[in-house]
Amino acid sequence: MKILTAIDSMKGSLSSIEANQIIADVVTKEGHTIEQVAIADGGEGTVEAVVKNNNGQKVAAHVQALDGSMIVAYFGWFEAEKLAVIESAAASGIQFLNDTAITHPKNTSSYGTGQLILAAIDRGARTIVIGLGGTGTVDGGMGLLSALGIEFFDSEHQKLSAKGSSLAKINSISKEGLDPRIQMIDFQIAADVKSPLTGPDGAVKMFGQQKGLEKAELDEYELAMTHYQTLVLKGESSAPGDGAAGGLGFAIRIFLKGTSRSGFDFISEQTGLETLIQQVDLVVTGEGKMDNQSLQGKVPVGIARIAKKYGIPVIAFVGRFSGDESSFYDEGISVIVPIIDQVMTLEEAMTHASGNLRRASKRALRLVTLIK
Amino acid sequence: MKILTAIDSMKGSLSSIEANQIIADVVTKEGHTIEQVAIADGGEGTVEAVVKNNNGQKVAAHVQALDGSMIVAYFGWFEAEKLAVIESAAASGIQFLNDTAITHPKNTSSYGTGQLILAAIDRGARTIVIGLGGTGTVDGGMGLLSALGIEFFDSEHQKLSAKGSSLAKINSISKEGLDPRIQMIDFQIAADVKSPLTGPDGAVKMFGQQKGLEKAELDEYELAMTHYQTLVLKGESSAPGDGAAGGLGFAIRIFLKGTSRSGFDFISEQTGLETLIQQVDLVVTGEGKMDNQSLQGKVPVGIARIAKKYGIPVIAFVGRFSGDESSFYDEGISVIVPIIDQVMTLEEAMTHASGNLRRASKRALRLVTLIK
Repeated sequence: MKILTAIDSMKGSLSSIEANQIIADVVTKEGHTIEQVAIADGGEGTVEAVVKNNNGQKVAAHVQALDGSMIVAYFGWFEAEKLAVIESAAASGIQFLNDTAITHPKNTSSYGTGQLILAAIDRGARTIVIGLGGTGTVDGGMGLLSALGIEFFDSEHQKLSAKGSSLAKINSISKEGLDPRIQMIDFQIAADVKSPLTGPDGAVKMFGQQKGLEKAELDEYELAMTHYQTLVLKGESSAPGDGAAGGLGFAIRIFLKGTSRSGFDFISEQTGLETLIQQVDLVVTGEGKMDNQSLQGKVPVGIARIAKKYGIPVIAFVGRFSGDESSFYDEGISVIVPIIDQVMTLEEAMTHASGNLRRASKRALRLVTLIK
Repeated sequence: MKILTAIDSMKGSLSSIEANQIIADVVTKEGHTIEQVAIADGGEGTVEAVVKNNNGQKVAAHVQALDGSMIVAYFGWFEAEKLAVIESAAASGIQFLNDTAITHPKNTSSYGTGQLILAAIDRGARTIVIGLGGTGTVDGGMGLLSALGIEFFDSEHQKLSAKGSSLAKINSISKEGLDPRIQMIDFQIAADVKSPLTGPDGAVKMFGQQKGLEKAELDEYELAMTHYQTLVLKGESSAPGDGAAGGLGFAIRIFLKGTSRSGFDFISEQTGLETLIQQVDLVVTGEGKMDNQSLQGKVPVGIARIAKKYGIPVIAFVGRFSGDESSFYDEGISVIVPIIDQVMTLEEAMTHASGNLRRASKRALRLVTLIK
């Protein structure tokens, strides 16, 4: 039997690559063949996933992290296509937040992500895909843009340093210094967030507190972001996705002419997922928590819809399931298999996800091949 | 597809009949056919199971329960074979224990189980199978034997009442009054307990405390039981199984010439289990807790051994599993499927066993039929 595994990460427990490898081990041990597609949503792990899927390289760059420290970060590189894949979490991710004033959004910027773009341009990139999940900054992309040569000035034409607290003071923006190579490059945003830059669902009100803004600071911060938006868009509304990654979505769309797509679509296209699915007898997918939200085109359902077209059965392994199974059957998922198999707490379930998935996949494979 | 379901009870959660019915509902809903065999181990539910399996009757009798109350108890009746099936738990079961002196083993007897035997004889029984699980008495069978006409006397030839405290006082036993029909009847004991009447693994030391004996009372009670045994066996050792049901195994073997078999063997023979298994595509079995003890011929493994002979795959649904799965595979179980599918406590798992089994069997059936 030929099997394709494309499991989403089980957040807090297993990366997509790890989950797929567990399935691969079980399947090959039983004498079947396996094809693996690592899934990414634009957040942490996106570079790992795309490099793994298509034999890319990981290229190192020295950049400034969200907390001001200098770090080595990596982007994914595909020489033949001159394609770079960057994740904003690498330099500007929430993993750098440390609960001190240093990493408070007023004092941080996405500068390091801009440096990664420069490194990719230096490498010769013609297409740069930027994944926007898991970012810890709320700077409207000021840092990223600064790294690329854009300058921000206050009302006295003093140059502003790139950080959240400067947003309210921006009076003018100069693109004169923008790296001229930028306009030759196709920027693509890979993100699942559909938030606008401002408003109740925006970068500040919706995500600010996750990144260290106090509730009492939200209104003032929102005003500053709105000021910045108004200046740039001259009164137009921001677009869905602009609020991703503290406004990186906005900055890339407006200043770098970036276009948006879902992380899954990028992976799907890059790996030729639809062709792969047609070549197998069984598709394995899954995610940490499957619920009615999962019906809105997240990974397992996206894969199932493709498999359904070709009549290929789909098993979805899940950490937790809630909802109506028949809605998922309608989308092409043949059976939903929770991986928990004994009395345990949620914490234990997350700690032991690896063993749980291994046992669940062994059982499922035995059942699938039970009647010869 | 034709499926046979023969799941053991999941103690504290589901009877064998209930568990089978859940499987039957799932299987028939998907358009498959189902054959059900209810499993019994000689304990509570044995009569229900055998009556269900072979379209027997349930016959009522007024008898004295362990706590002295008069109750209506039932035995199973198969007219064609003149076969009666009795469970000692019906009149003498632990469910009557109430933590008062009234149900202390010194004051109770298996009299009601003897009355059930009389009722079966009155009905015309030629074979009487007596299941010995879940009994709450420790009277060495005095009560049962008294009901059938055997008399016990003390050293002053005063007739003793049948109860645990009389054991130490028995000086002679008279079979003169024994119902003469007894010798025409084939008595069979269905029990899983292999304990002798006395000794560290015997009816008193091993099981006495479950039935209300205090730890401090065990030695004296053991002496009384040993006195009774010595009187009856004239110094010979008791046999394995004599200690079942507080000594009912001993009484039936010695005074009624009963022979022993496992509850499963009886069910297996009565239902023609081996023939049934050969006629299906898939066997479903299971039990509450599957562990290394289950390898000693308990229900799922017993069934799997038969199925293995004919190459029929076997799914075992279990509440809990511990041990080495490959040992079970060797016995013919194709796959062990724990029914727990989400974070839950043991208490929740037992309360929700019905829904857990239903969902697990739906999933398993979908997996088994996944690849056409």
